[in-house]
Formats: sequence, C-alpha cells, structure tokens
Amino acid sequence: MSLESSRLAPMANAIRALAMDAVQAANSGHPGMPMGMADVATVLWSKYLKFDPDAPNWADRDRFVLSAGHGSMLIYSLLHLSGYEQPTMEDIRNFRQLGSPCAGHPENFLIDGVESTTGPLGQGLAMAVGMAIAERHLNTEFESDLVDHRTWVIAGDGCLMEGINHEAIGLAGHLKLGRMVVLWDDNQITIDGKTDLSTSEDIKARYEATGWHVVSCDGHDFADIERAMDEAVADDRPSLVACRTIIGKGAPTKQGTSATHGAPLGDEEIAAVRKGLGWDAQAFEIPEDILADWRATGDSGKQAHADWRDRLVESDKGEDFMDRMNGDLPDLPDFAQYKADLAADKPKVASRKASEMALGVLTQEVPAMIGGSADLTGSNNTKTPSTGPLTADDYSGRYLYYGIREFGMSAAMNGMALHGGVIPYGGTFLVFSDYCRPAIRLSALQEVRVVYVMTHDSIGLGEDGPTHQPVEHVQSLRMIPNLLVFRPADALETAEAWQVALEQEDRPSLMALSRQGLPAIRDDAEENLVARGAYRVKSAAAARKVILIATGSEVSLALDVAKTLEDQNIGADVVSMPCAELFDEQDEDYRSDILPNAQPDEILRVSIEAGTTFGWERYTMMNGLNIGINSFGASAPAGDLFEKFGFTVEAIVPQILTKLNK
Amino acid sequence: MSLESSRLAPMANAIRALAMDAVQAANSGHPGMPMGMADVATVLWSKYLKFDPDAPNWADRDRFVLSAGHGSMLIYSLLHLSGYEQPTMEDIRNFRQLGSPCAGHPENFLIDGVESTTGPLGQGLAMAVGMAIAERHLNTEFESDLVDHRTWVIAGDGCLMEGINHEAIGLAGHLKLGRMVVLWDDNQITIDGKTDLSTSEDIKARYEATGWHVVSCDGHDFADIERAMDEAVADDRPSLVACRTIIGKGAPTKQGTSATHGAPLGDEEIAAVRKGLGWDAQAFEIPEDILADWRATGDSGKQAHADWRDRLVESDKGEDFMDRMNGDLPDLPDFAQYKADLAADKPKVASRKASEMALGVLTQEVPAMIGGSADLTGSNNTKTPSTGPLTADDYSGRYLYYGIREFGMSAAMNGMALHGGVIPYGGTFLVFSDYCRPAIRLSALQEVRVVYVMTHDSIGLGEDGPTHQPVEHVQSLRMIPNLLVFRPADALETAEAWQVALEQEDRPSLMALSRQGLPAIRDDAEENLVARGAYRVKSAAAARKVILIATGSEVSLALDVAKTLEDQNIGADVVSMPCAELFDEQDEDYRSDILPNAQPDEILRVSIEAGTTFGWERYTMMNGLNIGINSFGASAPAGDLFEKFGFTVEAIVPQILTKLNK
Repeated sequence: MSLESSRLAPMANAIRALAMDAVQAANSGHPGMPMGMADVATVLWSKYLKFDPDAPNWADRDRFVLSAGHGSMLIYSLLHLSGYEQPTMEDIRNFRQLGSPCAGHPENFLIDGVESTTGPLGQGLAMAVGMAIAERHLNTEFESDLVDHRTWVIAGDGCLMEGINHEAIGLAGHLKLGRMVVLWDDNQITIDGKTDLSTSEDIKARYEATGWHVVSCDGHDFADIERAMDEAVADDRPSLVACRTIIGKGAPTKQGTSATHGAPLGDEEIAAVRKGLGWDAQAFEIPEDILADWRATGDSGKQAHADWRDRLVESDKGEDFMDRMNGDLPDLPDFAQYKADLAADKPKVASRKASEMALGVLTQEVPAMIGGSADLTGSNNTKTPSTGPLTADDYSGRYLYYGIREFGMSAAMNGMALHGGVIPYGGTFLVFSDYCRPAIRLSALQEVRVVYVMTHDSIGLGEDGPTHQPVEHVQSLRMIPNLLVFRPADALETAEAWQVALEQEDRPSLMALSRQGLPAIRDDAEENLVARGAYRVKSAAAARKVILIATGSEVSLALDVAKTLEDQNIGADVVSMPCAELFDEQDEDYRSDILPNAQPDEILRVSIEAGTTFGWERYTMMNGLNIGINSFGASAPAGDLFEKFGFTVEAIVPQILTKLNK
Repeated sequence: MSLESSRLAPMANAIRALAMDAVQAANSGHPGMPMGMADVATVLWSKYLKFDPDAPNWADRDRFVLSAGHGSMLIYSLLHLSGYEQPTMEDIRNFRQLGSPCAGHPENFLIDGVESTTGPLGQGLAMAVGMAIAERHLNTEFESDLVDHRTWVIAGDGCLMEGINHEAIGLAGHLKLGRMVVLWDDNQITIDGKTDLSTSEDIKARYEATGWHVVSCDGHDFADIERAMDEAVADDRPSLVACRTIIGKGAPTKQGTSATHGAPLGDEEIAAVRKGLGWDAQAFEIPEDILADWRATGDSGKQAHADWRDRLVESDKGEDFMDRMNGDLPDLPDFAQYKADLAADKPKVASRKASEMALGVLTQEVPAMIGGSADLTGSNNTKTPSTGPLTADDYSGRYLYYGIREFGMSAAMNGMALHGGVIPYGGTFLVFSDYCRPAIRLSALQEVRVVYVMTHDSIGLGEDGPTHQPVEHVQSLRMIPNLLVFRPADALETAEAWQVALEQEDRPSLMALSRQGLPAIRDDAEENLVARGAYRVKSAAAARKVILIATGSEVSLALDVAKTLEDQNIGADVVSMPCAELFDEQDEDYRSDILPNAQPDEILRVSIEAGTTFGWERYTMMNGLNIGINSFGASAPAGDLFEKFGFTVEAIVPQILTKLNK
C-alpha cells in the first residue's frame, strides 16, 4: 500500500463505520452501498470534486448526485466528514428519525450539499444530465470562468436498468456532455440476488453505442480508481466509470451478497467489521487524524472558490449572472402589453397556440427560459423565435429537441432547475404525463420551478382516440402535493397562467392546453385572475339558483348553459377555475364569495370538465351535479365526441332542471 | 423485378392506396408509416405470418403487434386485404369516425386481429415480449405442437427511443426469446425532423449489447427483406430487423420527410402518388387480381390451423389447454378452506404477507398464474413454493425475476394476458405505480386480467421517507376507468380481494398492501364481502350519529375511534371500503343501507385513509370530515409518522366532536 493509500484507506473506513453504525442505530437502512463505494467516493472527494464546505451553494461548485439514493449514509458521511455545517454527528445519530435532516433517502430540501432528492431509481442520473446541460449553457452564455464545473454521479445497477437510463444517456451522448462522469457501482448484486438473475446485458457496450466513453477500474484499488477517473476527465464525451466493487465491503460474512443491501448488519457482524478493518473508534466517533485528513479535502475547493469570487467581482457579467442564479425574474413590460392587447382583441385560439403566443413574448423578456419538447414541437407549440436549438455544437441555444423521451426530458428539466440559472419548460401530450409522472412528482417534492406544457388535454383532440385522450389525468395531477395544475379557458387566462407559473420559485406548474380553438371569455386584463385560482366570469342576472364551475375548454360551454338557464329565468353564475390549488389557498372570504355556503336546494353547484368527475364533489357537494367523463374516450372528430359524451347545452341543461325540480 | 416481386409490388401499393385515401377522407391520421412499411408488411403477411383470417382468435396463430400504432391504417389494410371479416371496406371508409372499428389507433377491444392496443409509444414492443414469454411457457407446459408460434412486431424510432424499450429488450434478451422478431421501420424521421436532431445512438450495437441478433435490409427490396427475415427466423436469439425505409414511400414530393407522418397528403399529392405507382383504381377499390393475391396469403395458415385442430383433438392435454386459453378458473376448494381458517384464526399480519399466504394457496390451485416482481421479491411477497423461476433454460417456471424494470414488467404482463393461457401478477412498491402507470392504463383500456401487487402502501412504510411513501397514488389509481383498486384491511379481506381479482376476466386489479402488521377485523368468511366494495364492519351501539369509512390499515384505527365515541354515547358505524369501484357498482338499496342519505348534522360521515383526502368528498359529502394526508410524507419510524400526520384516536375524535358540536 502506498503512503497515499495508507491515508485514504482509513478515510474510507470512516464512511463504512458511520454507515453501518447509523443503520444499526436506526434499525433500518442500506449499509451495503456506502460500504462498497466508500473507496471510490473517498478518491472523488479528496482528489476531484470541486467543493467548498463553507459555501454549499457556491454557483460554480461541482455537482454531485447520489443517484442510488438508498445509499444515503454515503452522502451524509461525506458531507459531515468534509466539514459541511450539516449534517452534525447528532443528525447522523438520528438517521431516519423524525426531524433529522438525515432522512432515509437524501432530500434536497432538508440539507445543503444534497443537490437532488434521489431514491426513485434512475432519476438521479437523469437529473444530472440536466445539470450538465445547464452548466454548458451557462458556460457559453456567461464568461466561461464563471461557470466551469463537472457533474458527478454515483449510480447502481438499478439506476442503469431502469428505462429512464436509456433516455438520459441517449440525451447526454447526443449532446456530448463531456463534463459529466457516472461512477457505476458495479457490484453485480440487486435486491433479488445476483444481477444475472434478471439481466445479461453488456452495459459497457450499450453506453459506447450511445456515444459515451467507458473505462473500468477496481473500485477498491485507490490508484486504479484514480487512473480511471483521470481518463474520464480527459475524454470529451460523457464518461461511465465501471467500478468493480464488493457490496458491503468490510463485512466479513455478508459482503458480496444482497443481505447487506437494505438491512442492518447486526451487532455481531459490525463487531467483526471493526476487527477486520482495525477500526477501534466507538460508534459515531472519528479519530482526529482521520477527521483532519477529511477536513483537508475541502481546502483546494475553498481556494478555487476564493479565486472565483475575485473573477466574479471583476466580470462585467457578474451581476447578471448572480441575478440569474438567484432566480430573479426581470420586469415584463412587453408581456403586460401583450395581455392588455389580448383583452382588447379577444382572439379565438387554441390554448396551446395561446401558450406559444405568450412564450413568444416571455422567452424574449426572460433569458433564463429554456424550452423543449419530446418530439412534439409543432403540436405542443413550445418553440419561439428567441429559442434557437441547444446542440452539441452550440450550447448557447435555448431549445432542446428532447426526442421521444418524455421521462428523460422531465428529469433533465428537474436537473436544470436544481442547477439554477435557467427556467426549463418542456412539452408533450397531456396523456403522456403518465410517462413522466415520476419526474413530475420529484419536481413537486424537490420544490423546483419547472413548467410542463401538456397539450391535447381532453377528448377535444378527437380522432387519435382513447390512448391519446386524457380522462383521469388533470384530476390525478391535481392530487400531487405542491404542484400547480393550470387549465386555462382562453388566451388571456393562458398568459396569466404562464405569469403565475414563472413566479413560483419553489414549485412546479403544469399547463393543460387544448388542441382546439377556444373563444375569449374576458375583456379586461387589469388583475391576474388566474392567480386567484377561480373567479366569477359571469354573475347571475335572475335570482341565483345555479353556480356553474368549469375549466379550460368547458368555460365557454358553461357560459352557453348559463345563457339558456337565464332565458328560463334561472339565475346562474359561471365560475372559471383555471387552478384549483390556488383557489384552495385563497382566504375564506374570497372562497365563500365565489362559492357561497348554501344547500343544493338553495344554490345548485355544477362542475363541467371534460375529464373524470372523481374529486369534483369537493366543489359541488354531495347533491351537486358533476358533468364529466368516467370512461375512456373514443376515436372520432372532436365535435362528435363532445356530443357523444354529453358536453352540449342540450345535454346539460335538462340535468340541471331535474336537480332543481323544474 | 422478379416475377414474384412483380406480384408483391402491387399488393404493397394496395396498402399505400388505402392508407392515403382513408387518412384523406378522415382529414386526419398518419399515412407516412403504412406507406413506408407497406413492402415489409407485404412480405411478412404473404410469406411468414401464420394466421387464419377465418379464425382470428386461433390459439396457435402468430402474434403481430403494430407497436407504432399511429400507423393504424397498415393493420386495417392488412386485415381487410387478407380476408378477415373485419374491417370491411365501409369500416375503412369510416376510419377515425364515431363507431368505426378503425379507430385512430388500433384498439384490441374493437376489432379481431388487432392483438393489442397501441399508440403510447414503446408499449407494443414491450407487450410483445410478454406474448413471447407466454408462448414459450405454454409451449413447454403443454405439448409443443399445440403452442408453437412466433411474435412479430413493427416498431418505429419512437418505440426504440422510449425508455421502456431498454427494459423490454433487456428482458427479451435475457430470456432468449428467439421466436420474437422486431421489424424496425428505420426511416430516420421523427415528428420534429431527422432523427439526428435528437439522437446519435448506434441502435444495432445497443441491441447486440443486450443479447439480440441484428440484421439489416433494404425495406423496399422484397428479396432483401426476405433474406433478412430468413436470417432472423433462423437465429435462436430475439431478432431486430433494421429495415431501411422511406417514410411516405410513393409520395413524390413529400416522401422521406416528417410531412408525411401525421397529416393527410392532400388531393394533389395523392393524385401524384397514383400516377407514380400506376395505381388506377378509385379510392377504396382494390383491383380483383391484387385482392386475390392478398386473399391467398391466408391459405397456408388455414391449412396449418386445420392440422393444428387435428392435433388438438388427439392430444391428451387438448381440453386442459383450451380451458386455459379460455381463461376459465378452476374450483378453489383449498382456498375456501384457507379463508375459513383465517376467519377462525384471525392472524395479525401485514397485508403483503397475507397476500403471500393467499398466493401460496392460489398458485397451487390455479396453474395459469405466473408471478414476478421488479426486484422486490422479498418485499412484495410475490413468490410461492409453486412458482419456480421462469428462465431462458427453463420456460416451465412460473416466476419472473423482472429486474428493476417496473414499466417493462407491467407491459409484459399485459402481453401475457393478451396472449392468453396465463394470468400474470407482478409486484413493486405502490409509489412506483407511477413508473408503470402508462401500462396500468393500458391494462384497463385493453380489458385484460392482470393483477398488480403494490406493497408499502402509505406512510406506514416509515423510514424510507417521502420518495417511497404513496400519498396521491391510491386515489389517483381509483380514477383510471375499468381498474379495480383494492386496499384490504386484514388477511381475510386480502384473500377475498385476490379471489375477486382473479374472477375479473376483462379488467385488471391492483392490490395496495401494507408493509406493517394489521389486526384481523372479521371472524366470518361466509360471504365474500370485498366483492361488495364496502360493508359495515361494526354497527352503532348507541344512536347512530357517525359513519366512519376507512380502508386498509386505517380500518382498525376507525374501530378504535368508534369505540371511543361509543364510550361517549355517540353511536358510530364503521364501514370498510376495500374497493370503492365495486361499491359504486352495487345497487341503490345496498349503497343507501351502508351510507344512508342524511344531512351531516344528522349523521356525520368521516373518511379515514392514510393518503390524500382529494376525492373522498364523494363519500363524505361537503360537510363531512376527511382524515388524510395532503402533503408529502417524511422519514421516520411508522409509528412516529402516523402520530405526526394525525392518525390516532386522540387526534381524530376531537375533530369529530367539533363537527358534531359536542
């Protein structure tokens, strides 16, 4: 063992000790991965990773993503040992307990230094692709000495076997993201047993086929790890470093088996590990010399940070850059004018087209916005004159042709937003929100500003039929905590929705947009009424007996229904509800003004939305009336479908009259 | 051109004519793919595919899946031309109109000969993997001359770029499904433009890395197509045939561009196609000689079918085999006894464990059942003594180690069920239902008997934290039409749920099962009460003022709450609702007996479920009380979490008293 290895080995063993002891104390967790990757992580942290433990949010730090998030004790150990303020040793002692930032899986919102929430396999690596895209883009847009860092990933077999891996590495290889390095924990073990139980794939050949550089190493030989990492850093393609490791390395009877993956080792085995490694320290104690070596790993990063700060102060673009990294929105005078024009002109356009019109202005005024689509650019209307293609040859572009990779796109957007400096939006058909739903959930959990542009939002898309017609999607998305779902009714609401979405610094938004044209329902743009979540479009003329609550394409239908009711001297309000979540956040006065407390026989509430009625009882009460679609759709022209599924004045009014006993 | 080619070319042109004319008549659709793959499809149909147009459901037919489902006019043309009863030419004239079986995308429930619903990209190919698994399994289980057919797929670049492709081909390569052939429409075009806009992948190398045989051909040279198919058929690995084609082949100004992908060609271009191809027939007319050649393509299949029928009659296993293919369930005497024992013994076990116990009996009595898990076998409790591994070396096994491929697993299960003869079930964590949600939706739309075993169904899983804790999942799954979602409260309900699930021949079921132990709530098994969807577990002793409606792990909590209320002389029913969808299907008498119509100030309805409250208003009314979780979860021991989120008698009872003005 070289002198250097003789110092690295105990550093790595400190990780092993913390991991096994914390899991044992919690009586739950995953010791195998941190123990297996301790050597690789020690080399990364001490020789390659650019970080300043005193400034975990330094803009030009290297990004490190623990894609195999179940091995969370690895990142907690690394952060603690290298001197980050958090986690403290007390936090680690409380691993997996209520209130500890050391949660079962790493959560970006609980602890600095955790760049992303991981655990749902495959997504960490795919988010890292987004981080690497944002890095190259900002490197090109700003002076390259302000943004010039790497993105590192530790991933396991699970991350590589998930479908999203194919999408993510395809995108990274195509965009030649040479500053991205994936350290693959090649331990040949999954939960069910040996990897050959379920796969026969030549992973290295697959990565090479996708434009990646691949290098292998012995993940327990420090010099060999360093050789492989040097090679990875030198190559201008994204790199996969296949690290042959032993899961649970150091556990004499259990290492190399899935028994170390997701359960405490037990006191006896832990004692044997201590003996085998010559680790004499008590649980949660790190010998001073080893801790000193760990603390020194941040020294070069601190110096690099100081140098960077000097460059930032001297740079003409320094202030702009920091505004961008802070996520500040510029003023939007042109957009205000655009909304006023809409109120005056009242164009009849599809809301997907209205979204394109809004984006045309916004992408001009907000340079942070980076658009894209999963191969539906012309259908999602996501491209604007301001957003040229972002390609391997030109990272300054602001539009990504993501390919037919909805999930990979969404995860990449999360990564871009987590990196900071850009505001990503991307499109697909609403029905394919199912394909990227796990990433939408992580947008919400991670509290990032990402905007999903989901078009073709109901049977209104017509002929493509039930596989393409969302029925349950809008409501099921409204259930995801911390996600705003917008279903705007016309061009003005669409513009307002975009503005509200961009203002959400710590939550994602999703636009459900129509394929078909929608008439304008408002003629004033003074207040952003979408920000209220719901508002009265029309007040009852006759004595109010009915409140019609509708969204998107059904608001104009509700107005027609109201007209017919009023003709029969039945007063009817029409409430447009473009964002139910925002309405729920309004104060009681506002809510009870829009939806007054009254029994159904006094005021009947009717919901109209071309999707499932499930959940609409929240707003219409038990004896209200819910107009919707509770089956799959069908293939036919849109007009025929709306008639078939009862979305006509003629079909709706009699149901209301029956409820009113008229 | 050889003599043979001189007959094949006009046959292929018949497809081109029907595709372009039908799309033009509908004024919507996708002519490019059928026109591009017409030559390949003609070779497949006339020389390789084993089919009998008079018996589209013949058990030993080759399966053909049009994974690129947008090219639906290809399959409609093939079925019509080769003499299937449906579609008629009238059906084709009504392509994409209300009521026509020729829907925008192929729907298995609308037309025989369409083996699976396709359109959501990537899933057709992944379902074909399941069909090929079922074929090999039945081939081994029954005499090989009863089941011995191939599975053919036509897939486009979208199907190959989607993440699920990686999961599907990984599984197929690992299982050496040599009787599966994928014909890749390698036209280098996606909707957004040339494929090199978004991908740089060497697809052939990737397939080879995954254990596939790969061969290429000129997709417009009949002899070359045949050479490649011969090679594919001869190889004992699954084969990818890369067919270099020109999208929209035959359209003089538009072919080779994305303009032909998803829009009518227009009258002028169509006229030019006719001229270029020398196609003189009117729209929707096929010259007699060409039709005769097409009709003859079924001759060899008719003979093969007749021979097979003879073998079936002679076979000892013939009757068993047909029962299996018909999907008949055997009697379940042991299972009836098992349920009776549960009612007597009242064990306290996790519902995932109860599921394993039920499966132990069921997999013994129902040989059609094939289990599996996406690398969570020990957590999902899906393996039983009757289900040995199904591997490349032994297809007779009944358990699949699917690997970390939730979406691929689910699509494969759909394919198995569509093939028939097997009843697939498979497991993952409930939170990862998001990863396979697009396939769950297709289970429901395709009306197949598939059972999803989703464990770790709430914050009750504890320490793994919010990425692993379902909150919105149970309710969002209940929204999918034609899917039964079960959340059983104890071992007996779990057994009953399994029985009901197996009895559903035309819809899928999903089990939401607990990680933690659950006490028994019932002591009689005479009636399967889960089949009712909801039922009264306990009637109010004092005058009924409250109805507590709970599911799964919260039913026992509801019983505790009721006890505390009764102690205060407040009568409380407890209703267990293991399957809301089945409850909704009960008659009015039953429903109003369980949940009587009454104002909340007469009888307060309270829902208790450890998930989102969104949608529970359907059962509790506007002024009811909904106990649930509307945020993400957290990492801590389960007991701490239930307390933190208010799932205790102490937290719930005061809320009820307040509502009752006590």
